[in-house]
Parts: sequence; structure tokens; C-alpha cells
Amino acid sequence: MGGDFGPEVAIPGLALSLDRHPELRFQLFGIEDACRPVLDKYPKLKDASVFHHCEVAVRMDDKPSKALRRGRWRSSMWRSIDAVKNGDADVCVSAGNTGALMAMARFCLRTMANIERPAIAAIWPTVRGESIVLDVGATVGADTQQLIDFSMMGAAMARALFEIEKPTVGLLNIGVEEIKGQEEVKEAGRILKMSSLPGMNYFGFVEGDDLGRGTVDVVVTEGFSGNIALKAAEGTARQIGEYLRAAMTRTWLARLGYILAKSAFDRLREKMDPGKVNGGVFLGLNGVIIKSHGGTDADGFAAAVDVAHDMARNDLMSKIENDLKIYHARVSDTEMQAQEQQG
Amino acid sequence: MGGDFGPEVAIPGLALSLDRHPELRFQLFGIEDACRPVLDKYPKLKDASVFHHCEVAVRMDDKPSKALRRGRWRSSMWRSIDAVKNGDADVCVSAGNTGALMAMARFCLRTMANIERPAIAAIWPTVRGESIVLDVGATVGADTQQLIDFSMMGAAMARALFEIEKPTVGLLNIGVEEIKGQEEVKEAGRILKMSSLPGMNYFGFVEGDDLGRGTVDVVVTEGFSGNIALKAAEGTARQIGEYLRAAMTRTWLARLGYILAKSAFDRLREKMDPGKVNGGVFLGLNGVIIKSHGGTDADGFAAAVDVAHDMARNDLMSKIENDLKIYHARVSDTEMQAQEQQG
Repeated sequence: MGGDFGPEVAIPGLALSLDRHPELRFQLFGIEDACRPVLDKYPKLKDASVFHHCEVAVRMDDKPSKALRRGRWRSSMWRSIDAVKNGDADVCVSAGNTGALMAMARFCLRTMANIERPAIAAIWPTVRGESIVLDVGATVGADTQQLIDFSMMGAAMARALFEIEKPTVGLLNIGVEEIKGQEEVKEAGRILKMSSLPGMNYFGFVEGDDLGRGTVDVVVTEGFSGNIALKAAEGTARQIGEYLRAAMTRTWLARLGYILAKSAFDRLREKMDPGKVNGGVFLGLNGVIIKSHGGTDADGFAAAVDVAHDMARNDLMSKIENDLKIYHARVSDTEMQAQEQQG
Repeated sequence: MGGDFGPEVAIPGLALSLDRHPELRFQLFGIEDACRPVLDKYPKLKDASVFHHCEVAVRMDDKPSKALRRGRWRSSMWRSIDAVKNGDADVCVSAGNTGALMAMARFCLRTMANIERPAIAAIWPTVRGESIVLDVGATVGADTQQLIDFSMMGAAMARALFEIEKPTVGLLNIGVEEIKGQEEVKEAGRILKMSSLPGMNYFGFVEGDDLGRGTVDVVVTEGFSGNIALKAAEGTARQIGEYLRAAMTRTWLARLGYILAKSAFDRLREKMDPGKVNGGVFLGLNGVIIKSHGGTDADGFAAAVDVAHDMARNDLMSKIENDLKIYHARVSDTEMQAQEQQG
């Protein structure tokens, strides 16, 4: 029901993803009157789905607290998250209100053992392909341990999504001052280097321009600067798109050039379009939730469903659990050694 | 002497700016052997300049502490800052090592009365023109008072640079959570709203994508997120430039289109080029220092000198001093009223 266009975009998006991955099966939650007419147009999708009517749909402008009051137990958003909790679904995908989705997901699924705070991971288009960037706005600030948790969760997601064995992980920092960056970032870097975890290759610090360059597979930062970086990059892409449009219509020669190069421009627009690499992933909860961009089209929603498929197929949850176990075993080993040395 | 190309770029840049502003006069500090041959090629610039030979030039990779040890009193960087302190120059422009320049500027000029920390203000290209964004990396973190100081300094700079009477000021924040953003940001917003200063129009919170949109004339944030936003945007512009180049050479039709639309592309590249809106401005010190991009060309260096010219011509320093005076008078009025009410 979520996003700017509701089932009109979500259902065609599901159909697209089903074409690519015929093994997918869907539990759909929504208001019947709004969904049925659209669903009826996609018989293959209908056969692969179970539809559950819900009385309430969370609105895009509902505050999280209000969404929880109105929509707990009975809204389509709650029930789709609950399906993950019950084991009826492997992943939940929603284009709905991000704040409400995060609040409900935290309330319903709770954070994983040993994880204090969830994070939202974005899939970032780079010159070299794609990277994962987290946290892009689940919470403001992060202490050393939370940055380490984000690193492990992001690395596990990179293994599931990009199917690489040992993704590179960088901590986002600034390079202007001699004594660089936040204390927590420096301390997290020190610990990640020392603990040399098997599921990642800790790279060191990266800067804002390394995001688009694709210097590392996973970029870790706290939610305030992560959200600002994401939106600054999106804004810049949109801004250059506007410059480009203006430049290509100014003279008739430019217009002719544009017509000749049209397919090249279409490819470019696709690469610049944030909808194409859709899907913020909520990590650190007892279940995986994918947030699709609210303003996306069917292609974009399908991309989010594709991400969900990868996360389930490659069992993201056990990858994260496994990494956490190894890390905490190493930490307690180190602590025991330290105690023995003191004794 | 600074930047990737030293006097080879700085001197032609000065000549360009002098052509545009014949009233400019220069005090040049550098190593004679490196500068003289270039300067000799620009007789008009030579006539408008006094050259001072210095024994030492700070290197681009010198750590600030090392630059201070090696270069205090005698390096070209130190002496150009000192010229501002002595009143021999109105503004100092350097393409040198940012960390060293900030360290020397703080040491030599000291922060203004009532200002605890300097900030670096960037001139940000937007869809609507240009905005000022600060702090983009002078220091990590900022408390409420420092964010208010940055707002006043940024507004004064906008008045000097854009020649508008009451620039709009926004505080950078994130919009995902119900309880948004950092405590300091919220508190600074409350105070700016209440104190309704004559030199600015406080707009409220803005998000990362408002930067490129040009929603406000001045965007205020602490140095960590500001630096990351700046570099993320620069990285995205570079990334899209690479996509564009690749798209325009893939097929012969695209290549032909590119040739026809070449002048449009050149305009676009100019708008995307960070060098064209060159000049980070150090604010909050007893003197104005302009940092030009190290990798810039003569055009970019000239743009930084143009900014310096605007700052001096419109007397940025007294604008800031004046605003600080008004603000502190209002704050103490409010405090007195509060005491009277209590008494």
C-alpha cells in the first residue's frame, strides 16, 4: 500500500521480479479494493501469491508513533513485518513511510542479540559497480561498538548481495585535520584492524568522494552523516540532470546532438536514477526488511524485490549471526588473555 | 607556492583576476627562483604586485605541526597570513595544504572575540545559483553556540558575496526519525528563531538534497558531516562525468551527437567543475583567508581571488563583528529580562 503510487506500482513491480525469479512466492498485505483490480491483471503473479486483506494502511505522512497506535496488529505494514517474525515470509518489502516502518520493525522484530541499534543500509551506485553504505539514517550518532556492529552487518550483506567472499570495509572519515575525525571512528578502526575478522577485509578510513569512486565494498558511518551524504549525492545527481536537460535544449545543434545520442542519454539517466538501485535494507533486527524508495516506479520496486530475493537466497540472517559469534568469541578471548596476563 | 602546480597556476590566475578587477594590488610571497620567471611573463601583474622572497615553502603533504615548526615566521604561507595581521593585505589567498594553512592562520591571527572555533565555508553550486555551506571540515563536531556563530558568519559572508540584504539560513538535519537530528541542531534552531537577527532570515532545517537545490543561501552544519557532504557531492559530480564520457563514446551515433552538442557539453562541464566555484573561506579568525582548491587551474585560482576581492570590497570582517555585537546584546537583554522576572 505504501509509496507514492501504492499497489499501482508495487504489484507490476512484483510481476517483473517474478519473471526474473520464477521461484519467488509472495504474501501480499493490503486493502482488498485497492489491490485486487491490479492483481487481476497479472495472473502469473496471482498464482504465486497469497493475498491478505488488511483494514488499515499506514499513511506516508503518519508519524511513527501514530502509525504504531493506529496500525499495530492490523495494518498491512505491521502484518507484513509480522509475517517475517512468524516465519511465513523470509523478507518483508515495503515502499511505505520509512519512520513508521522502522518503528514497527523494531517493535515487532526487536534487535538481534548483541546488537543495540538497527541500521539502514543503502545500495550506492559507484564508478566500479555498487557499494553498501550504512547507517543512512536509522539513528543519529553511533558509538565505537555500534560502528563495529554496522561493519559486520554491512560485510555480511555485501557477501549476500555481491557474492564475494571477503568484502572490503571502510570507515567514513574526514581528512582535513592532522588529528582526524571522531574519536569513536578512530577507536572502531583500531579494533577492526586488530580483530581481523574472517568475513571482511578492513580497509581503513575513506572520505566522502570514495563513495562514488567505489573504493570499498562497504562504507560505515553513523546515521546523521550517512543520511546527509546520501541525500547530498542524490541531490547532486538530480542537479546535474537538470543542467544536462537545460544544456541539451539551448541550441538547435545541441538538440540535434541530443536526438542522435538519445540511447546513450537513456543509459546515462538509468545509471543516475536512484530508483534503479532501489532498496534500503534494515539490518540488526530479527528479520530482514527492505525499504523501497517511495517515489519509485515498477522497475525500482522490482529492484527492491530482487535485493530481498538475494538476501533470502544467501541467508543474510545466519551470515550476520555467524559473524557476531566469531567477533564476540575473539573479544572475550582477548579479554581472557588480558586477565591472565594481569593475573 | 601551494597547490599541485604552484606559481605556474597561481600567477596566471592572479593576472586573470587583475584583468577583471584592475584596482587589485598584490603582495606575493614565494621562492624567487620559482616565481620570477613566471611573473616576468605578466608585466601588468608585475606592476600591480610587490614580491617578497621567502626561504621556505610549506609542502602539500606536510603535517600541520611540521609545517608550523619548519615554516613559522619564514615560510611563504606564514608571511602571507602575517600580511593580513599587519594590515599589509586585506585578504590572504593560498592554494596550499589546508591543514597547515588552518593551523598557521589560527596561530597567527587567533579567533575573533566571542568566537571559539573557526569554520571553513564552501561556495556550493546549486540549481538556482550558489549557496554558502559551513563548516566543511575545520573541526569535528559543533555545540549549539558554535552552530549559531557559524550561522552569523555564513550570513555575513552571503551578504558580502551575493550582495543580498537578508540571506536565508538553514540548519542541516536529517528527516527520517520522528525525533529528528542532533540535540545541538535543534537547540540552535530554537535560538535562531527566537532571536530573529537583522542580518539573516532563519529558514529552519534543511536536508542533504536541499544543498544542490539551493533552498537557502547559507547551510550550516558541523565539520564532520559538512566535509562528508561536500566530498560526496564532488564525488558524485565526477562519477556522472565519467558515465557521461563513457556514454558519449560508446556508439558512432552518440559520438556524432557529442560533436554537435559540444558547446553545450562544455557549458555543462564548467557547471559541474568544482574548480569554477573555487574558494573555501576561513571564517572566525581576525582576518579573512581564502583557500583555493589545490588541484585547480588558473581559472579556478582566479575565481578564488575574485572571492577575496568581494570579501575585502564588502568588508566581511566588520559585517561579522557587527552581527556578533547585535546577537550578544540581544542575548544579554534576554538574560536581564529573565533575571528581572525572577527578581
